Amino acid sequence: MNFRIEHTDSQTKARAGEITTAHGKIPTPVFMPVGTRGTVKAVYQHQLKEDIRAKIILGNTYHLYLKPGIDVIEKARGLHKFIGWDLPILTDSGGFQIFSLADERRKSQPGAKPMRKITEEGVKFSSDIDGSVHFFSPESAIDIQRTIGADIIMAFDECTPYPCEYEYAKKSMEMTHRWLARCKKRFDETQGKYGYDQSLFPIVQGSVYKDLRIQSAEFIASQNCEGNAIGGLSVGEIQDDMFAMTEVVCGILPHEKPRYLMGVGKPEQLLECIALGIDMFDCVMPTRNARNGMLFTRNGTITIRNAKYMNDFSPIDPEGTSYIDNQYSKAYLRHLNFADEMLASMIASVHNLAFFASLMREAREKIIDGTFREWKERMVKQVSQRL
Amino acid sequence: MNFRIEHTDSQTKARAGEITTAHGKIPTPVFMPVGTRGTVKAVYQHQLKEDIRAKIILGNTYHLYLKPGIDVIEKARGLHKFIGWDLPILTDSGGFQIFSLADERRKSQPGAKPMRKITEEGVKFSSDIDGSVHFFSPESAIDIQRTIGADIIMAFDECTPYPCEYEYAKKSMEMTHRWLARCKKRFDETQGKYGYDQSLFPIVQGSVYKDLRIQSAEFIASQNCEGNAIGGLSVGEIQDDMFAMTEVVCGILPHEKPRYLMGVGKPEQLLECIALGIDMFDCVMPTRNARNGMLFTRNGTITIRNAKYMNDFSPIDPEGTSYIDNQYSKAYLRHLNFADEMLASMIASVHNLAFFASLMREAREKIIDGTFREWKERMVKQVSQRL
Repeated sequence: MNFRIEHTDSQTKARAGEITTAHGKIPTPVFMPVGTRGTVKAVYQHQLKEDIRAKIILGNTYHLYLKPGIDVIEKARGLHKFIGWDLPILTDSGGFQIFSLADERRKSQPGAKPMRKITEEGVKFSSDIDGSVHFFSPESAIDIQRTIGADIIMAFDECTPYPCEYEYAKKSMEMTHRWLARCKKRFDETQGKYGYDQSLFPIVQGSVYKDLRIQSAEFIASQNCEGNAIGGLSVGEIQDDMFAMTEVVCGILPHEKPRYLMGVGKPEQLLECIALGIDMFDCVMPTRNARNGMLFTRNGTITIRNAKYMNDFSPIDPEGTSYIDNQYSKAYLRHLNFADEMLASMIASVHNLAFFASLMREAREKIIDGTFREWKERMVKQVSQRL
Repeated sequence: MNFRIEHTDSQTKARAGEITTAHGKIPTPVFMPVGTRGTVKAVYQHQLKEDIRAKIILGNTYHLYLKPGIDVIEKARGLHKFIGWDLPILTDSGGFQIFSLADERRKSQPGAKPMRKITEEGVKFSSDIDGSVHFFSPESAIDIQRTIGADIIMAFDECTPYPCEYEYAKKSMEMTHRWLARCKKRFDETQGKYGYDQSLFPIVQGSVYKDLRIQSAEFIASQNCEGNAIGGLSVGEIQDDMFAMTEVVCGILPHEKPRYLMGVGKPEQLLECIALGIDMFDCVMPTRNARNGMLFTRNGTITIRNAKYMNDFSPIDPEGTSYIDNQYSKAYLRHLNFADEMLASMIASVHNLAFFASLMREAREKIIDGTFREWKERMVKQVSQRL
């Protein structure tokens, strides 16, 4: 993997760069659509490539491990071949899902007793599908991601919940650092064994505590990996903390390596975090909100169920960059959404992902031509409006 | 509307023809994908046109009347503009849904008391969405279909259930004939009023009773409409009766007008009915079965959930005509289906509709080159196999 910085903005910390992987080049800043179970929900692969112009997508190790199972992906000779996607893929380590899904299940199914037992060795957890018990360790998370064969793979970390006591956050961060050493060891030992050219990114943790974030960022920076990630900041309620922690951590993580802010976020948050020095993003928001009838546009968000769109036969987004934006009207999309028709999710998902991708392309252009800050200030106001 | 018969098969009653409507030409025999609520489920309009090569689609008056409501479609200036489809559309009259959905609801919701009261004047019924009470008459069914603006619209009939007592079937058929007179009157009175160029097809009824079918077909034939339909034979269990009644009716309906067999059917049934003289078909089977993981191919049906496809990385249908057929593997589609991902329905629906369309195109070629019967015998065996 190679990362080349094309231009660094003089007024902010924003950078325009390019990551080169075995499956192609990724211009940064980049937004990575989330393909949880080997599919970006409701979107064809050819739409991702040709219409949305996604340059990299994400897969979830936890979900793929449980379904279809790693043996199937191994027999398919990797996730790229299995899902029919020949551009770069990034897989997370499974940690985030192990921690978040157990909590979600506890909330949504009061009787459920999802198991999750964290030890120094690793995490024993019950499947959210059938309750069967599994064990992930730093070593197995690397082995599984080696088998999946993504271009960028993530270290196995504990993603602490929010809010989180200082003492717990500190202990957890320290264990995540020890786990990183084991991940790196296993990663180095398995170099070339699976036939894929892969890079390992470690993850900065430390909850919302500045001193912990500094400590974690310094440790992660010292590991000299090919790129670095920031975890634990994808919680909706902590936008100010998220910005503050991202700024602190970006100041420490090496300039010459890509920086990936995990699980963030809204269009205006992406723009602010680009200004802080982030290069890579992922989030389920464009696809999840699409399924709920929310469209992101450069002029603000549209809630398609709103009565005012009942007889609005104008295109869903005349300024949009995707094929779909001028093919379908707001009134038709509203009808499809109310009728619970798949086409509603299909149209809105392509639209939202195309918008996120085009916003990243435009940010990149503005960084290169030196007008990023002014543009960003204007766009943050625009995109956060409610239409 | 114009119907030109290009070639009549010498060994069967099959015909290759072409219907010309205000929205374009329809080569026959033709299969019409069902777009119940203004969308063929899980399929983009551009896929219908470019990949599936559908030449006409169906809309359901009952469903569109309830949602989004006729006022919205009127404001959109017709269904074509509302859904973004500029090729021909056919709408049914709503009768079939009024009768079948009430029965379905009674079965699936034991406590439900769906209302459906049939009188000479029309049918009072409760909505399957919210239980609200509505009234359809031959006149209102025409008015609604005039507003929707489809190229071919259907007379309002009573679609008798199966099984059905002879006496009930006879009385019902006679009322359907009286309703046809009212439909025709309203249709003639409203000619040009809505700005659409439309044709009205009447429907032969008479359940599985040969004498009633003869009586109904003779009456319908005498009405000199632009095309004729056969209703009440779309029940899965009555294949032999369906063939027998279709043969009897096709022998009476005029040769020079298109014949439409409503709601049928499996690929092998389409082929047999083409041999009996049918030109037009519609059925939810290709899309509904797609959502359940069944693929129709020229070599038989595939149940994608079958364990033998777990590690089958071959294309879903190497002989298929759609773009999708060689993009995705059986193992991947199986995974998507088990994971309940929309992409499973999207892929399988496009595949099945493309197969149905290509089967009709091939039948047409075989009729024209004089090899239809032999080909049909072979294909009926092939397509009805289970792979």
